[in-house]
Amino acid sequence: MAAPPLGLDEVRDAERRLRGRIHRTPLLTCAGLDRMAGRRLLFKCELLQRTGSFKGFLPTSWCPGQPRSVSKMPSVPMVPFWCRVTPVTRAETASSVVQETGGVLVHPNQEPAVIAGQGTIALEVLEQAPYVNAVVVPVGGGGMVAGIAVAIKALRPDVKVFAAEPSNVDDCYQSKVRGELTPNLHPRDTIADAVKTSIGPNTWPIIRDLVDDVLTVSEEEIKRATWLVWERMKLLIEPTAGVGLAAVLSEQFQAVPRDVQNICIVLCGGNVDLRSLTWLTDLSGKAE
Amino acid sequence: MAAPPLGLDEVRDAERRLRGRIHRTPLLTCAGLDRMAGRRLLFKCELLQRTGSFKGFLPTSWCPGQPRSVSKMPSVPMVPFWCRVTPVTRAETASSVVQETGGVLVHPNQEPAVIAGQGTIALEVLEQAPYVNAVVVPVGGGGMVAGIAVAIKALRPDVKVFAAEPSNVDDCYQSKVRGELTPNLHPRDTIADAVKTSIGPNTWPIIRDLVDDVLTVSEEEIKRATWLVWERMKLLIEPTAGVGLAAVLSEQFQAVPRDVQNICIVLCGGNVDLRSLTWLTDLSGKAE
Repeated sequence: MAAPPLGLDEVRDAERRLRGRIHRTPLLTCAGLDRMAGRRLLFKCELLQRTGSFKGFLPTSWCPGQPRSVSKMPSVPMVPFWCRVTPVTRAETASSVVQETGGVLVHPNQEPAVIAGQGTIALEVLEQAPYVNAVVVPVGGGGMVAGIAVAIKALRPDVKVFAAEPSNVDDCYQSKVRGELTPNLHPRDTIADAVKTSIGPNTWPIIRDLVDDVLTVSEEEIKRATWLVWERMKLLIEPTAGVGLAAVLSEQFQAVPRDVQNICIVLCGGNVDLRSLTWLTDLSGKAE
Repeated sequence: MAAPPLGLDEVRDAERRLRGRIHRTPLLTCAGLDRMAGRRLLFKCELLQRTGSFKGFLPTSWCPGQPRSVSKMPSVPMVPFWCRVTPVTRAETASSVVQETGGVLVHPNQEPAVIAGQGTIALEVLEQAPYVNAVVVPVGGGGMVAGIAVAIKALRPDVKVFAAEPSNVDDCYQSKVRGELTPNLHPRDTIADAVKTSIGPNTWPIIRDLVDDVLTVSEEEIKRATWLVWERMKLLIEPTAGVGLAAVLSEQFQAVPRDVQNICIVLCGGNVDLRSLTWLTDLSGKAE
């Protein structure tokens, strides 16, 4: 399956269609975290987007619309309690709903319109912080990092784009190393559950060509980074959104040249279930 | 003790001195909470101010400087683990430190410069949302609501200023009812611990003359409102900051005329200790 063409024009189109329908999310800073990272960090607060997360309130990988997507229409969200949560049963259920309703299925990370919509995050960042040197984006299906990479590399090829991924589900990293799409057939568990998905046929060519590097982080690093954003920034991100900061605070990031000074980290979601935070008490001592 | 004169000029002076030293905090909205309140809510995010809260990281009522205060100088914070936490021992300890160091004691809510500094919040709100009809501010010592009332009533006397207070420590409400300063001699416990303090000689005359009404809320209402801000807005406010939303969602607020439509709620702090949230699990069911 050949990847559909996707460039700056599509991102600009998405921007026009989205105007007035979504918030311009703030770019926040935190001096304490700057000191820890040894760089200037700019947090792009997508978790404050309408619906609380770039993928809306739908904790599944099939859904009919997203805040930074393109259209507004009657929609049937496919949420996990409707069907058993394997990719196969989910696809089957979605397909039967589409047949029954005569609807359209919009893939949450491979649909070009969705990728273009998420590219508008980059347009905002470049306006809000033209001095930015790098953008760090958590990667699951890769829609967000692909959209952002398309826009950044078209407008400012000097700005680095890094994907950040849990080591436990490192298909994006493996794909870049091997030079071919290498999905996780048996993904391990990760606390960053929203990026457990693998990248796909539409996001892979963009990631292959435009993403500078993929950084992987451990579960402990993700928990610590998530805690830090809660404690220091007062933003209730979900652990998936902590993956970007975890990467920037990791030892491997020390290898990034010092003149890559102003780092935008996309805080991509706030779908945290406050009632299931059993790791909180264990961790609190370590993060200080 | 006569109250020192404090007006718009002092707030404007504070604004000039603070320029470049503090963030302009964002004004965020949440459609879901608008629906619950039946009004348009504008959340002024002081918890995102440098240091995480309008009173900085100092969990005491004596401290030598505050983010929206006026000067930058070497400082000795008086934090509770240095001295037993009664007003008397705290005052004694503070007084001896002042003698030893030759320093100046800055009261966190009665010091006019601090009140003026917090008035700059109102200047920002009027710029960010000139259509605002009311501002709701949690009240403890009253520095924030007094500063805001001074600025609002000087510039836009049509805008209502409401103080919001836990019923358990309702000295501000009692003072307004009786028409004289009525401190809590034996304050009950409240989860909104940062407003357990009573209003004082400098904030009382301003509150008496310029605050339109004092709204009181129960502990359950405060917990529910705090939970709602966490869950819906992804902002990790402390329960004290939930007092304002609790007031707006309360039954008594229904009496406020419907044309008071655009309500700014000041989210004043994020000093929440995530490890001590024993009420979280009990509450989660109720807030939905």
